[in-house]
Amino acid sequence: MPPTRAVRPPRDGARPRPRIRLENDQRRAQLLALAKRAFSDRAYDDVAIDDLAQTAGISKGLLYHYFPTKRELYIAGLREIADELVEAITRVPPDLAPVDRVRTGLEAYLDHVARHSQAFVALMRGGIGSDPEVAAVVESVRTRLFTKFLTGSPFANLLAGDARFETAVRGWIGFVEAASIDWCVNPRLSRPELCELLTQVLYEILRVVAPSALASAVVTSVPPP
Amino acid sequence: MPPTRAVRPPRDGARPRPRIRLENDQRRAQLLALAKRAFSDRAYDDVAIDDLAQTAGISKGLLYHYFPTKRELYIAGLREIADELVEAITRVPPDLAPVDRVRTGLEAYLDHVARHSQAFVALMRGGIGSDPEVAAVVESVRTRLFTKFLTGSPFANLLAGDARFETAVRGWIGFVEAASIDWCVNPRLSRPELCELLTQVLYEILRVVAPSALASAVVTSVPPP
Repeated sequence: MPPTRAVRPPRDGARPRPRIRLENDQRRAQLLALAKRAFSDRAYDDVAIDDLAQTAGISKGLLYHYFPTKRELYIAGLREIADELVEAITRVPPDLAPVDRVRTGLEAYLDHVARHSQAFVALMRGGIGSDPEVAAVVESVRTRLFTKFLTGSPFANLLAGDARFETAVRGWIGFVEAASIDWCVNPRLSRPELCELLTQVLYEILRVVAPSALASAVVTSVPPP
Repeated sequence: MPPTRAVRPPRDGARPRPRIRLENDQRRAQLLALAKRAFSDRAYDDVAIDDLAQTAGISKGLLYHYFPTKRELYIAGLREIADELVEAITRVPPDLAPVDRVRTGLEAYLDHVARHSQAFVALMRGGIGSDPEVAAVVESVRTRLFTKFLTGSPFANLLAGDARFETAVRGWIGFVEAASIDWCVNPRLSRPELCELLTQVLYEILRVVAPSALASAVVTSVPPP
């Protein structure tokens, strides 16, 4: 059990943030939420555990009871953000036309990227001191999106196991990441312009690797570039 | 000055590798060459400084005189490999047709990737414990290739500063990286097949972002998909 701490008496007339007892799960969720916000807004090295504990209204010792190191808190937050991202991208009304499914997914992705711009660039470029655990989270997002794409698109079952098709989908995910990083660093396109570019590029790529499947299923609904 | 060391006497009849005095620059170059080979063939954690020193025929202390930590030796080797890679990709006969320039550059890239497959995947996925210095080397390769692409392609001057065009070129570099990582992990396409796919995808992307410039300059020389 985490230790219970008394509220410290006010000093110099300042009112301290009251220390509230929460259940374990609630406390963990509260710390994760704070960590996700902090690591999204600031560089890894600029996030201080002291500040997080203070904002949560608990001691640093109690924070370490839940997350023994800053790294563990970061990884736990990153995993949650990754899950939310995959969920947001793939939460698409099933009755949408294929091209609108792609656009809706991309809008959710770019919305996420725009909200966590600094953290996204640092994470994707490995500049925060990424390690195998961090790399595994990023890779799991790619793999889940890849799998959802394959199982979710109307013509994917025609092409399951097709090496050119699957390589191209993996490649397109790399295209989206690279273009999004560039957009964060040097935002010259509007969000709808970037979304449109990514959609068009996907359809041109599919034209290369899946011309016949695409011709019947989708191409007619894409506006000409 | 590095210390001079005497050749140790043979033990158990085995002949020790003779310790040869080399000039500073030669020794540094020798150690870098050994490091590049070792880090390309094996995972970072599996490279032992002891083995490198033994292969070089010098003491561990003398190796640390040149490269104070394993990390510094790794980064120095990585920088040289990055320079060689950019040089190989951009060393293209200037009289080639545009599509053949792209293919020749991609062949050099895939040749490099195939030779350093394990190290490439570890590096690009951040799985070796990448840090800001490692990330900077990877990013500098992307930026140099991007710049060479812009200055080297026959229609790039028509599109200099065009945000959609430049975003798409950045994105295509991301496509090439992601498809190449996938190819290393799960090699189902032959090297010429992958090279052809990457070339075709580039031209389809350019068709989206630079239709008029491409129409006159290049498209006619690309075989239909």
